[in-house]
Amino acid sequence: MFSYQPPLRDMQFVLNDVLRAPRALSELPPFSEVDADLIQQVAEEAGRFAKEVLFPTNSVGDAQGCRLTEQGVVTPDGFRDAYQQFVAGGWPALACDPAYGGQGLPHTLNVILYEMLCSANQAWTMFPGLLQGAYECLHQHASQELKDRYLPRIVSGEWLATMCLTEAHAGSDLGLLRTRAVPQEDGSVRITGNKIFISGGDSDLTENIVHLVLARLPDAPPGSKGISLFLVPKFLPEGSNELGKKNNVLCVGLEHKMGIHGSPTCSMDFDEATGWLVGEPHKGLAAMFVMMNSARLHVGIQGLGIAEAAYQNALAYAQERLQMRAAVRPANRKNEPADPIIMHPPVQRLLMTQRAYVEGSRMMALYCGLLLDQAAHHPDSVRRTQAEERLALLTPVVKALMTDQGFEGASMALQVFGGHGYVRETGIEQYLRDSRIAMIYEGTNEIQAVDLLLRKILGDGGARLQDFFDEIKHTTIEKAGGEMETYAQRLNRLLADTGQVLTHIGQLANSDPSLPFMLAPDVLRLLGHCALAWLWLQAGAVAVAGDSGDLRFYQAKVHTARYYFEFVLPEADQRLSILRSAVQNSKEGRSLPLLSDVMEDYAS
Amino acid sequence: MFSYQPPLRDMQFVLNDVLRAPRALSELPPFSEVDADLIQQVAEEAGRFAKEVLFPTNSVGDAQGCRLTEQGVVTPDGFRDAYQQFVAGGWPALACDPAYGGQGLPHTLNVILYEMLCSANQAWTMFPGLLQGAYECLHQHASQELKDRYLPRIVSGEWLATMCLTEAHAGSDLGLLRTRAVPQEDGSVRITGNKIFISGGDSDLTENIVHLVLARLPDAPPGSKGISLFLVPKFLPEGSNELGKKNNVLCVGLEHKMGIHGSPTCSMDFDEATGWLVGEPHKGLAAMFVMMNSARLHVGIQGLGIAEAAYQNALAYAQERLQMRAAVRPANRKNEPADPIIMHPPVQRLLMTQRAYVEGSRMMALYCGLLLDQAAHHPDSVRRTQAEERLALLTPVVKALMTDQGFEGASMALQVFGGHGYVRETGIEQYLRDSRIAMIYEGTNEIQAVDLLLRKILGDGGARLQDFFDEIKHTTIEKAGGEMETYAQRLNRLLADTGQVLTHIGQLANSDPSLPFMLAPDVLRLLGHCALAWLWLQAGAVAVAGDSGDLRFYQAKVHTARYYFEFVLPEADQRLSILRSAVQNSKEGRSLPLLSDVMEDYAS
Repeated sequence: MFSYQPPLRDMQFVLNDVLRAPRALSELPPFSEVDADLIQQVAEEAGRFAKEVLFPTNSVGDAQGCRLTEQGVVTPDGFRDAYQQFVAGGWPALACDPAYGGQGLPHTLNVILYEMLCSANQAWTMFPGLLQGAYECLHQHASQELKDRYLPRIVSGEWLATMCLTEAHAGSDLGLLRTRAVPQEDGSVRITGNKIFISGGDSDLTENIVHLVLARLPDAPPGSKGISLFLVPKFLPEGSNELGKKNNVLCVGLEHKMGIHGSPTCSMDFDEATGWLVGEPHKGLAAMFVMMNSARLHVGIQGLGIAEAAYQNALAYAQERLQMRAAVRPANRKNEPADPIIMHPPVQRLLMTQRAYVEGSRMMALYCGLLLDQAAHHPDSVRRTQAEERLALLTPVVKALMTDQGFEGASMALQVFGGHGYVRETGIEQYLRDSRIAMIYEGTNEIQAVDLLLRKILGDGGARLQDFFDEIKHTTIEKAGGEMETYAQRLNRLLADTGQVLTHIGQLANSDPSLPFMLAPDVLRLLGHCALAWLWLQAGAVAVAGDSGDLRFYQAKVHTARYYFEFVLPEADQRLSILRSAVQNSKEGRSLPLLSDVMEDYAS
Repeated sequence: MFSYQPPLRDMQFVLNDVLRAPRALSELPPFSEVDADLIQQVAEEAGRFAKEVLFPTNSVGDAQGCRLTEQGVVTPDGFRDAYQQFVAGGWPALACDPAYGGQGLPHTLNVILYEMLCSANQAWTMFPGLLQGAYECLHQHASQELKDRYLPRIVSGEWLATMCLTEAHAGSDLGLLRTRAVPQEDGSVRITGNKIFISGGDSDLTENIVHLVLARLPDAPPGSKGISLFLVPKFLPEGSNELGKKNNVLCVGLEHKMGIHGSPTCSMDFDEATGWLVGEPHKGLAAMFVMMNSARLHVGIQGLGIAEAAYQNALAYAQERLQMRAAVRPANRKNEPADPIIMHPPVQRLLMTQRAYVEGSRMMALYCGLLLDQAAHHPDSVRRTQAEERLALLTPVVKALMTDQGFEGASMALQVFGGHGYVRETGIEQYLRDSRIAMIYEGTNEIQAVDLLLRKILGDGGARLQDFFDEIKHTTIEKAGGEMETYAQRLNRLLADTGQVLTHIGQLANSDPSLPFMLAPDVLRLLGHCALAWLWLQAGAVAVAGDSGDLRFYQAKVHTARYYFEFVLPEADQRLSILRSAVQNSKEGRSLPLLSDVMEDYAS
């Protein structure tokens, strides 16, 4: 009963009609040959892999989980086969540098690919997702020797990779980590320490695994400025291209988690393991952060992928399941004992809310994919910088909002299934469990909020934000007419209100330094709605003028745009109300009602 | 590390200071002896049982789950022992009729008991919870003969009970059920059919189980008006008090669920099982609905119980876990490498939001407990009716809002734990999984919303609502002063805004019959905030004037009241904005953007 259909039509709409991606991409020298046909072809192939090869492994992966054996970690049935087909299809190489065997296609296509992979099997998708992160990190920072040795194997997917960051007492705060790296005479280091929560720390998918490990050199200053990045392979290289002896890296335990059972979360023991420095000493965190934008976008896409899959199945179930009589019944159902639950308005609310966020998030993700490509390849350096700044602003929003809504969306889908959704065999509750982690890893959503407000907005005096708001006004609001005009006015007012309250927060930040930290979560949701409303306004305008050959699609799009503005956007009123009240309290010097001394245990 | 402390101090505050429960209860003839000391004594004993006996079985129950064997359902280790201690302590009899062995204490005390039981182990608590429901149902509807035979065993807890309602195609819509009851010459019936999702359908806790089964008599009209209620014991009675032969009722399967693993969710097969009619023929649904108020309050309390336990553990973790430097650091921590995460404002936001809902929900639950007692026992019939009407209004709010927040609260607690929260052994993710079901059973939260708006508000032309709002104005708002005055004004405005938008919805309901169904979920949250704001205003006022001997408690209470008004209540602005916009659209005849034809699958 459970199924997944790649949302190719909607992707096409977003890329061609809303973002005009084929033209934008063809302006970038490496992608001058990219056009709508090529994008469509890649999307179809990726969709086929996701639906036919990967999706059938999803519930098996959840039920079986990974096992730690004497030979290492064993993945669930079908994972290895799916991975081999993924590698044979050349998918890991999609957006990689041709110099190392990559296909050199736009990151925008990777966004399409990864949305569908995450819909099909989030746990499995973490393996290639980490590969992508390691590729970017090494490509930018490793020595030519390391790149020549490792990148071709990573680009092809022949070897997998991990990010070994977290330690038991150093999670969000990597500055506290203790793993040590001792330099050797041959230029290598010996690494000793314990890492936890290492996704894909060991597996049977590939014969070798390349670990990127954060550790301290002996002369390292304390805190986050004393952390260096090292490459530590599971098997040491021998000769030009052979696998030599096993390195002293061992997976010593697997976490039992709420979800993503198909992804092994490993405790790793490094016992004088051999590694090599990547980038400069003590600048390991900076090297990791370079790939932050794409890594956080990737996690946001996990939320989108799961929300899409959950929505599709809730929609199908709501069309089938017969319970109660609708308030308004069509003539031809008057004698039926019950109607499909999709006819009940509260169920429609659940589904439409899911849909408005899913389609809105897809626009946001693909827009950011395009920005990544422009930031890397636009011939005009001013445009490159603009794209980079815009990405810096939107990345925390994408990561936090889309993962929040992935979890929310899965929960709403479960609600549509009712009691049947709470039962494991239906499959929907797996989405709820799988989606929950994305609100935590790659920087908790609270950290995203602080990053957004403190660094990305207040950090440059609001310049990035102003630039974004100006573009919204000049490219979209001023041009909106007809059915969308009211919504354009709403968005215009929202931008003014948001700008105003952020100015106040900025002014108060010096005298009340806790204030922006406290309000950051609301600011993130608020800016998220500015971005979503902007994208929905564009989508609505395009759909109103849409081709009559696909009338139902465009009508549904206009309806969903209206739904977004009428039922989803009002969250902005809640957030503005919180922010204004807090600003007023701060101005009048009233202490905020969340000091930690209130927090004492009140139990007797 | 994981722990649970009965929140006795806060219960005492709510009962004695806010609700003045001892006095209100002593006005009811059966409870003339009840005073603050008695309440405190029962609360302490109940807390001891919950903490010391029941809480240790919670994670075991989740890990082991229930098993179906040839001898029937086997519960997890410790469940049987805890149940025996529960029975030995006389807890099932707490609020039951002394004529059948009950202690005859107020329902308000049951609310205290069940909050703590649900905090300690929600899955286990479903056993006695169902017992309570069956007791009320039989006590009101069964013949004297059935009462004499069954009630003493149920009141003592010696036998457990179930509610056999759901069938595969009849969940929310019981009118569709197909189980048949064929009358026999001896006055009994033979029942045949299959029921699913039967909590506690079989177990090893007691030697007998009393099933309350909905089925159709041969002459039954179709739909919900043809459903009768029957009592079907697992073992048939023999002689005066002996257990006879096994009845033809069998648990044929257990669901594998996302959570509440310790509660067996059974598929039950009735194969000409012997039963007896309870109440009148074809009036089974009405008989079940009589106990709806207390059953739905009970489910709301599950949300409260889990939110409390999750909050306590998140609070403790946030005080211990050291990560990052706070924006404002106390002088004595300036040289520490990191601060407890409770010092980070976004973490404080998570904790304070949990706390504001937990303490607010506790006030709401205990207020409803008091109303239950008044509805049953007030000497003045006008007051009895008033209490009943108020309960009818608030019950769907309590059920939906408190279960929403149970799940939300568990999710926020998990977020405080970060990656460690996603790991099973920490224990926090069990709360997330366990709490999710309460949003579905005993009427989904969408059904609660429709019940509230269509039946409880529009159904009597807003009389119950007006009565509630009048009381809020005259007893609370007009008396609020000092620090709470601003909040009293806010609440006053909220009541006016809510009343106004509901009047509009009522006026439009005839011409636009889908409208109230569509807006019901927002109305429920809005009315929930009217009630919470009212209770927080009272709590705040009492705490401002609070005894200096417990200054920290009262200060924390005032802070939490302020937090509620500043950060939680603004959800009302979101809901009002949605409602107003929908009313405006409906007035102007614009179709609502959620017709089911929009819902078609848009995947290619």
